Amino acid sequence: MSQLKGACIIGQSGGPTSVINASALGAIEAALDSGAITRVYGAANGIRGVLDDRLYVMDEEDRAELKRLRHTPSSALGSCRYKLKDPTADDADYRRILEVFKKYDVRYFFYNGGNDSMDTCNKISKFMQQNGYECRVMGIPKTIDNDLFGTDHCPGYGSAAKYIASSCMEIYLDARVYDTGMITVLEIMGRHAGWLTAAAALAGDYAPDLIYLPETDFDMDAFLADVQKIYAAQGKVIVAVSEGIHDKDGKLIAEYGGAGPQQKDSFGHAQLGGLAATLAAIVKEKTGAKVRGIEFSLLQRCASHIASKTDIDESYASGRAAAENAINGVTDKMVGFKCTRDGGYKCEIALLPLEIVANTEKKVPREWINEAGNGILQGYIDYALPLIAGETEQEKENGLPRFAKLRKVLAK
Amino acid sequence: MSQLKGACIIGQSGGPTSVINASALGAIEAALDSGAITRVYGAANGIRGVLDDRLYVMDEEDRAELKRLRHTPSSALGSCRYKLKDPTADDADYRRILEVFKKYDVRYFFYNGGNDSMDTCNKISKFMQQNGYECRVMGIPKTIDNDLFGTDHCPGYGSAAKYIASSCMEIYLDARVYDTGMITVLEIMGRHAGWLTAAAALAGDYAPDLIYLPETDFDMDAFLADVQKIYAAQGKVIVAVSEGIHDKDGKLIAEYGGAGPQQKDSFGHAQLGGLAATLAAIVKEKTGAKVRGIEFSLLQRCASHIASKTDIDESYASGRAAAENAINGVTDKMVGFKCTRDGGYKCEIALLPLEIVANTEKKVPREWINEAGNGILQGYIDYALPLIAGETEQEKENGLPRFAKLRKVLAK
Repeated sequence: MSQLKGACIIGQSGGPTSVINASALGAIEAALDSGAITRVYGAANGIRGVLDDRLYVMDEEDRAELKRLRHTPSSALGSCRYKLKDPTADDADYRRILEVFKKYDVRYFFYNGGNDSMDTCNKISKFMQQNGYECRVMGIPKTIDNDLFGTDHCPGYGSAAKYIASSCMEIYLDARVYDTGMITVLEIMGRHAGWLTAAAALAGDYAPDLIYLPETDFDMDAFLADVQKIYAAQGKVIVAVSEGIHDKDGKLIAEYGGAGPQQKDSFGHAQLGGLAATLAAIVKEKTGAKVRGIEFSLLQRCASHIASKTDIDESYASGRAAAENAINGVTDKMVGFKCTRDGGYKCEIALLPLEIVANTEKKVPREWINEAGNGILQGYIDYALPLIAGETEQEKENGLPRFAKLRKVLAK
Repeated sequence: MSQLKGACIIGQSGGPTSVINASALGAIEAALDSGAITRVYGAANGIRGVLDDRLYVMDEEDRAELKRLRHTPSSALGSCRYKLKDPTADDADYRRILEVFKKYDVRYFFYNGGNDSMDTCNKISKFMQQNGYECRVMGIPKTIDNDLFGTDHCPGYGSAAKYIASSCMEIYLDARVYDTGMITVLEIMGRHAGWLTAAAALAGDYAPDLIYLPETDFDMDAFLADVQKIYAAQGKVIVAVSEGIHDKDGKLIAEYGGAGPQQKDSFGHAQLGGLAATLAAIVKEKTGAKVRGIEFSLLQRCASHIASKTDIDESYASGRAAAENAINGVTDKMVGFKCTRDGGYKCEIALLPLEIVANTEKKVPREWINEAGNGILQGYIDYALPLIAGETEQEKENGLPRFAKLRKVLAK
């Protein structure tokens, strides 16, 4: 394939992770070192930065400072949740993107995000092709939710899973310290897929007694019976629940408490929260026990201090592979992972068509959840343990992380 | 002073910390290696274990496994919140303790806890003296709250402060990722003293915009005005609040939301919680902004994965000093720290009379809080930074902490 000369844009989208910047660094370094890519832009706040012509010139950054992105959580370029319209209904955004691409001679577009971002990539690429503008578009996956179709797992998941499993271990010891009864309800992120909550099972001997994912229907009576049985036997119960657990009619358990109307984000997803408090109140009323609700909240997606080395390295590799493959002529792919676990964990880059990834959610397989729907089986443990392996080498200054400080020079 | 031969008991009390077991290890190792101490017992669930004659024989533990206590959070021997009665009113508990001490020939008692535990130490020692039973009693401080009088700081505080500062840094980046407005309210532990919440200021460039401690009165109108001003200027606001903030009439802000009657623990302390949610709701109503409440909850006291090396080492040293000094004839003291910071941080063991420590709470000095009562000054930063220095060397297995697994053989 012929070499395509021109600038590139890298953008970050959706909720941040501990390692999304490691992916960005991989793409940026590969682009900066390439002869084909003439200029490297970072889009301020994802696709919004393209629409608003707010691009940071990454060539102006200090290379040593850039390298610190490997251990800097959240999205250093800024993110957005802006959803492009269907181009058949309204192509104004796409025409604007083409205009900005032309202005800066952008021939490479790398977009780092989840399902919605892959959809964005796909639509932009199709529009460019229809308008005869040559531009190679690559998706770089990112989501703590681990719900992208076609890839073994997603960059970001291993680090969030490591945080959750470690925190569950610590909470297990803490919650058992008194000689009095105690029930603890842990709320973990995950609307439709229970990957993050399943990670609680990695805590092994220190795992929660009961784990509920949105992959199965939640039955309040069965749940309360389970809690009471364990409480009667042990005096301590720890329960982990996905924020998105729902009953057989599809009603969210978070809404049982009458916490008022749910907010919705710009993609129409319900904004959840308060499930731990809701369940804790119900359990307290039923059992009379001391009950504590704990929400892992934002910390599970930004706790870079306990990121997985495997996840960091793979995230960097996926960003790098996106740029390198695009330079070599590939377009319209998401960089996924193909892994084997028999005889030791091996992970290879796989290039997946954007359209099969976009807008499809991968759930935790039913066979990795026990029959009662309140526990996680060995199949999941074997799958996930390699993803949390290895410790971060985050640089510290005065006992605290030293994050990357970018200059963020705007392109004119 | 003559050598006193006999057994020792070590007990752990009150809320756990990341490093309370490092202190226990220091005392246990010094006792096991001493010629004077004939047998080393661990009290199951603190003073309750003495009253119930439930003592673990620490001599039966594997020494290599014991060493893992250095990096195992929470109270490995179990804790309690049982408060001994005033012996002048009812000395039944004290007579029972004397009985158990005599049964096992206990001549050394080491108790690891906060204010209440130092009070317990003091009362037990006085009772033994009044009854002519020779027993050396030493208090080993422990509290994430850092509110013990007479010592520069408390074992457990540095690790909790490091967790809080690191988490604030990570949340700062996460909360700023979108191009839309966002207000975040962080609830940090601390009923009467704001030491833990002050640690948010260690995050430096990434610190919360506003920090409120219980050392000053909280004024809702001034708070809302501060939030609105920063929100108008930056579009993002992060607020850190101690759970115990109160208005000028002493009413807890956590109770403003009408979350129902407060529970009280066995010491009569109100069980707080829900402040973040209460404040978030008030701020949301006032500003119309997107507001997120985050409670650090138990994680701030059990996050051993990010414990401070300085704290771990000092905690171990304080336990060791308790046993060694008792063997050398000292009694009725708490092992405190005397520190200097000019020309580099130096920390020495100081032996403090139990009675001056018991039941006195040390607050954050007013001169370390700004005049408006919404920020922390450099005096605190200089004080606290050395306490969070250094990284833990926690052993990992499959990417997760390997905690100590004790045999816990009960004495007969």
